[in-house]
Amino acid sequence: MPLPTIEWEGGVNGRVRLIDQTLLPNELKYVYCDDTKSIWHAIKTLMVRGAPAIGIAGAMGVVLGVKEIQAKDADAFLKELKRVTIYLGSSRPTAVNLFWGLARMERVAQENKDNSVQEIKEILLQEAIKIENEDKAICRQIGENGAGLIKDNNGVLTHCNAGGLATADYGTALAVMFKAKEQGKRFKVFADETRPLLQGSRLTAWELMQAGIDVTLICDNMAAHVMKQGKVQCVIVGADRIAANGDTANKIGTYGVSILAKEHGIPFYVAAPVSTFDLSIKSGNDIPIEERSPEEVTNGFGKRTAPEGVKVFNPAFDVTPAKNIAAIITEKGIIKNPSVENIQRVLGNHVS
Amino acid sequence: MPLPTIEWEGGVNGRVRLIDQTLLPNELKYVYCDDTKSIWHAIKTLMVRGAPAIGIAGAMGVVLGVKEIQAKDADAFLKELKRVTIYLGSSRPTAVNLFWGLARMERVAQENKDNSVQEIKEILLQEAIKIENEDKAICRQIGENGAGLIKDNNGVLTHCNAGGLATADYGTALAVMFKAKEQGKRFKVFADETRPLLQGSRLTAWELMQAGIDVTLICDNMAAHVMKQGKVQCVIVGADRIAANGDTANKIGTYGVSILAKEHGIPFYVAAPVSTFDLSIKSGNDIPIEERSPEEVTNGFGKRTAPEGVKVFNPAFDVTPAKNIAAIITEKGIIKNPSVENIQRVLGNHVS
Repeated sequence: MPLPTIEWEGGVNGRVRLIDQTLLPNELKYVYCDDTKSIWHAIKTLMVRGAPAIGIAGAMGVVLGVKEIQAKDADAFLKELKRVTIYLGSSRPTAVNLFWGLARMERVAQENKDNSVQEIKEILLQEAIKIENEDKAICRQIGENGAGLIKDNNGVLTHCNAGGLATADYGTALAVMFKAKEQGKRFKVFADETRPLLQGSRLTAWELMQAGIDVTLICDNMAAHVMKQGKVQCVIVGADRIAANGDTANKIGTYGVSILAKEHGIPFYVAAPVSTFDLSIKSGNDIPIEERSPEEVTNGFGKRTAPEGVKVFNPAFDVTPAKNIAAIITEKGIIKNPSVENIQRVLGNHVS
Repeated sequence: MPLPTIEWEGGVNGRVRLIDQTLLPNELKYVYCDDTKSIWHAIKTLMVRGAPAIGIAGAMGVVLGVKEIQAKDADAFLKELKRVTIYLGSSRPTAVNLFWGLARMERVAQENKDNSVQEIKEILLQEAIKIENEDKAICRQIGENGAGLIKDNNGVLTHCNAGGLATADYGTALAVMFKAKEQGKRFKVFADETRPLLQGSRLTAWELMQAGIDVTLICDNMAAHVMKQGKVQCVIVGADRIAANGDTANKIGTYGVSILAKEHGIPFYVAAPVSTFDLSIKSGNDIPIEERSPEEVTNGFGKRTAPEGVKVFNPAFDVTPAKNIAAIITEKGIIKNPSVENIQRVLGNHVS
C-alpha cells in the first residue's frame, strides 16, 4: 500500500499535508500548506506532481483559498473563488487534471450558491475529499482493467512516474504493474530515469522496489538498445492531457519512446483516468507545452554540468500522436486504437 | 583552434600531458602520465575519451610502456611490448581506434627489429607523434568533406562529443560544423546532453560556444520533440567502431537518435576516420559493448539520485544499423548508403 501523497488534515480551517517529492528517495519529508500561496508553490516546484495528484492538490488548494474569503453573500463568494482558481491554475499549464479539479470545485460552489457561505465552504471541503477518494477507486480500476496486458515473463518499460506518488495512492501506469504483481505474474520493469528531474530514478524505481517488483534503472537514451535486445514486450506510461483524437501529452521523452516502441513492434499503452481527457482540444497540436527553467538541465543536482551562458531548451512535456498508441487504459475500460470514435465509445457521456 | 587534448612532452623518456575531460567545463586541468598505469587509468576513467584521442593515447601509452623495458635484444623487447599493448587494450573494449593504435605501434616495432632497442624506442615515439599529426590532418579533411552537408539555416543535432577534445584537435562530427562555420554558413546546433556522463553538455556545448557556433543544450529525451518541431535538418555524430557492413557503434543513445531521425525524414550522418572501421567484424552484432559502473547512473551529479540497491543497466555504447545511416563522412570521402560494397569503393585499400 503506497504512502498517501497528499491528504487534508482537519476541518474547513485545516491544512494540506503532502510528501515533498523533490527530496525522494533520499528523504521522506512531509510539507504542510496552510494557504493558496504555499500550495501554488508546492505544485510549481513539483513537491507534488503527477496529473491526478495535481488535480487533488488544486481542489484542496481551493479549500485553502476559501478559508480566508470574508464574503457576505454567495455572489461575492463566487467572485472571490474565481480569483482563487485563476491563481491556482497558473501553477502548471499542461496537466489538465488541475483545471478539471478547479472547474469541478467551482461548479459545486455554483450549484450550492443558495447555501450560506459557511455551508458552501464545508461542501467544498467534502468535494475535495471526494475527489481524492474517487481517485483511489479510479486508480484501482485502471489497474484491474490493464493488468491483463502484462503477460508472464514480460519486460515492461515505463517513463517518468505515474505511480502512487502521482495519484491519491495507487498510480495509473504503475497501478497496472501493482495489480499484475498482485495477480502473481512474473515480469521485469525498465524505468527510464527521466531527465531533467529524474522522476524515474527517484520515484518510480523507489515505488516499484517497495512493492517488490523487479525494476532496472536505465538512462533515457538506453531505451532503444534495451528494446533491440528483446527485453521489452510492452511500454506503459501515464498522461497529463489527452486530446479528443487520442493525442497524448505526457512527460518529455514519451513521444520518443513511442517511436522506438513502434520501430521494435512493441505495443505502447497509456494509462490515465477519464479526467485526463480534454475533449475541448481537437488534437495534440493545441495542447500548451510548459517550458521550465534552464537550471533544471544545467545544474541538475546542485552542481553545474554545462558551460555558463549556454542556451537551453527545456520543454516539460511532449505529445505522442494517437497513431503511436496501441491502447489507452482508463477506469471505464480499454480504448484500443484511440480515435475520436473509439474514445467516445468507451467514455460515453462520462466526459463533457 | 581547439586546445590540444593530448600531447607528448620531451623525448623517449618524456611524458603525456592531457586535459582531464571529467572536470570540464568547470575546470581546465592538465594531467601528466609518466607510466602505463597512469595512462590506463586516464583512458578507463574517461579523462581522455573520444575514439581518435584514445587511439593516440594508446600509442603514447606504448611509448610510456617501453621506457622501462630493459630488454637486451629486439626479440625480448617485442615480447615485453606485447605485454604493454595487452594491458593498455584492457582499458576500453569498444573503441577500435585504441586497438588500431596499439597494433600500429607493434607493427612498427616489428618492422624495425633489426635496430637497437634504443633506436626502436625512438622510432616508436616518432610513430606516436606521427599518429597524432595524421589525426589532425584527417580531422581537417573530414571537416572539408562533410561541410557541404550543412546548408544555410539548418538545424544540426549531435549526440555525445565528437569534437576537438575527442581527437588531436578538430574533431570528427564537430569538424564538419567547425568547417561549415569557417565557410560562413549560418546554422544552429542542438547538443544532446548525453547521459550518464554528460559529454554533450560538458564538452560539446563548451567547444561549440568557444567556436562561436549557435548551440542549444537539450536532454537526450527532448530530441524527438525538437525534430517534430521541424528544428533539425540533419544529425551528425561520431563513431567508436564501424563494422564491414557499415553498422556503427557509438555512444549509448545514438541508435535511438537514428530511429527518431528516420521517423522524421532527417538524414543521419556519421563522421569518422578510416581507422574507426574494423573490417574484421562483419556486422554490428559482433561489436563488444562495454558496460560501466551503476554509480554513473545513480550518483551522476555527485549526489545519490536513485534508491540504494536499485538494479542498473549501464551500457556505454549501442549499435546503429547501416540502414539508418544516410552517409559516413571519412577523410577519404563520403560513403553514401553504407554497405560492404560502398565502403570498399571509398576506402579502397586504405584498410586491411
